[in-house]
Amino acid sequence: MKLSCEKNILLENINIVQKAVSPKSTLPILEGILLEADENLKLTGNDLELGIECTVEATIEQKGSVVLSSKIFGEIIRKLPNDIVNIEVEDNHHTTIKCGNSEFNIMAITASEFPELPSVQKEESALIIPQQKLRSMIRETIFAVGTNENKLILTGSLIEIENKELTIVSVDGYRLALRKEIIDHAEGQISFVVPGKTLNEISKIIKEDDQDIAIYTTDKHVLFEFDNCRIVSRLLEGEFLNYKQIIPAEHSLTVKASAKPLIDSIERAALIITSDNKKYPVRLNIEMDKIVISCITDMGNVQDSIGVETLGEDLEIGFNHKYLLDALKTCDCDEVLLEFNNSLSPCIIKPVEGNAFIYLVLPVRLRQE
Amino acid sequence: MKLSCEKNILLENINIVQKAVSPKSTLPILEGILLEADENLKLTGNDLELGIECTVEATIEQKGSVVLSSKIFGEIIRKLPNDIVNIEVEDNHHTTIKCGNSEFNIMAITASEFPELPSVQKEESALIIPQQKLRSMIRETIFAVGTNENKLILTGSLIEIENKELTIVSVDGYRLALRKEIIDHAEGQISFVVPGKTLNEISKIIKEDDQDIAIYTTDKHVLFEFDNCRIVSRLLEGEFLNYKQIIPAEHSLTVKASAKPLIDSIERAALIITSDNKKYPVRLNIEMDKIVISCITDMGNVQDSIGVETLGEDLEIGFNHKYLLDALKTCDCDEVLLEFNNSLSPCIIKPVEGNAFIYLVLPVRLRQE
Repeated sequence: MKLSCEKNILLENINIVQKAVSPKSTLPILEGILLEADENLKLTGNDLELGIECTVEATIEQKGSVVLSSKIFGEIIRKLPNDIVNIEVEDNHHTTIKCGNSEFNIMAITASEFPELPSVQKEESALIIPQQKLRSMIRETIFAVGTNENKLILTGSLIEIENKELTIVSVDGYRLALRKEIIDHAEGQISFVVPGKTLNEISKIIKEDDQDIAIYTTDKHVLFEFDNCRIVSRLLEGEFLNYKQIIPAEHSLTVKASAKPLIDSIERAALIITSDNKKYPVRLNIEMDKIVISCITDMGNVQDSIGVETLGEDLEIGFNHKYLLDALKTCDCDEVLLEFNNSLSPCIIKPVEGNAFIYLVLPVRLRQE
Repeated sequence: MKLSCEKNILLENINIVQKAVSPKSTLPILEGILLEADENLKLTGNDLELGIECTVEATIEQKGSVVLSSKIFGEIIRKLPNDIVNIEVEDNHHTTIKCGNSEFNIMAITASEFPELPSVQKEESALIIPQQKLRSMIRETIFAVGTNENKLILTGSLIEIENKELTIVSVDGYRLALRKEIIDHAEGQISFVVPGKTLNEISKIIKEDDQDIAIYTTDKHVLFEFDNCRIVSRLLEGEFLNYKQIIPAEHSLTVKASAKPLIDSIERAALIITSDNKKYPVRLNIEMDKIVISCITDMGNVQDSIGVETLGEDLEIGFNHKYLLDALKTCDCDEVLLEFNNSLSPCIIKPVEGNAFIYLVLPVRLRQE
């Protein structure tokens, strides 16, 4: 194998495929990057759950394929000057990487053992969406993905397409995050659950621009295709939570609040919750056009208040501050609506207009003082 | 005790005195900040090695003194809105902190147990130096301070004044870092050893401006005085290494090199040193107007070269790359001089002109191949 390519382009693509490389694997070959020189150079990382393949423009003098340690290869290319990189692998796997005045000699691993990416037929129903739209939908729901491996299905996000509407939902048992967007290119009605890790990596790789990303699925896998990259991930199997059922249809109290002052107040109230073990709730006393936010712990107590618009009965309700803050900080808007029923029923956070997001947070039962 | 002051000014000074507060101490009172309200508010942190005292402009309604948990007090003030902060401590130590719509109630600790800062008479000989000059002298020598507690004296830097010349020297047994500056206000001839931790904190606190800092010493302590702050540190006792003796007076080979390409080459050569346990040296082969930098490890080998100006015999010499890089990266200049004698004698790194710094690095004996 013998090829040359530009350092910066090579590095950019190494950075992408590295997101699918296990830093430490029981199969040492999975700690490597597969290099395949054919018409161009193809780089592949694959941890068996997530596989990423990028095509890099290169001048191929001799075709071939080989696996190089992801860590070493990445670090070497990263430190090279901005110049043409020459890579040559001899039959005995001696690999020479030359650039400028630098020459590295390292050993490669035979490529034959490297696992192939699962095949996903591109004829199947596709969803096409601008990269930045998908990116923001992932980022605004991923925080509520579950971490409990005993409820494996909730460690992923549900992606649903129905009537040209794309919905992404995450639920962890204490809260729910939902985002909706109208999509031009979305055929039929499909739903599948993508592991949180996959979505997290994808949100880091795709760009903040209007270039499209195409999404294809099979029963077991999903393929994301964009620019020069193909990302294949397994899907989570099983029945996702019937999320529509847990979102209350009605409410007896509506609050319209500026997001920033509410966040600041909750953060101040949470300051005296010092020990991670003691789950002291933050208390919201919602009165006419005002929320009094307070917290009592063994450190002391704090009280804060902000002006809001209210419609409905007064209410005292307690929350884990972290869940409220995660949701409020994710809302990308100045004002939000909060909807309540009673002190044991979930709080819904919505935009003042439209239905682009719904965040739901379960309350914490307050001890009576 | 009852007072009010501006949030931002209070926070700025809390941030400073916190550098002398132990996050975890066997004496719980040392995890606190002493607040003394007299004409103004005085804040003190003291971990018994290092004490910092700052005076904060405040309106004092009732004098008094009290200790508040540094962590809680700092976090509360940090999160308050930019407004006037009111602090009131009752006789039973109930403390109320009010600002805007927020009110915190926490418990204070009695101030009587808080250890006083050691007194340093200001009549004694003082050194006066612009803050930014001291800051850069500390930053450019502190990396070579020893970490071996068995050679306690080397965990500090030697500060010497002689003939209006200020010298700061750090030595850790493998390398030496020395900085010199001419100082207008430096009387007599003194030398003392300040703990590295103290110097590190001071370099973070003092500003990048030409405001003066005054330094006073006793046998056991040093006082740094500037702006509204007083920093008192114990000195390290004992005889510092006779550093002048280990700097070679002569050399048989001089190399003039651009710092950046040399750093890049050494970093590239060090890329294949992966395991921290295996101390593979980086090898410098200095030939006529060229250095070939190479490294051989069980990962492979690398070779790099840069053009330089040489004067003297060819030389092959090995180094721990970290020590060479620490020194070269600290030199704040485009070009440096490197001086050598033989493969077992230290390398000296100096400016092309003047004597503002000397870095010395011991070589590593190379195995013959």
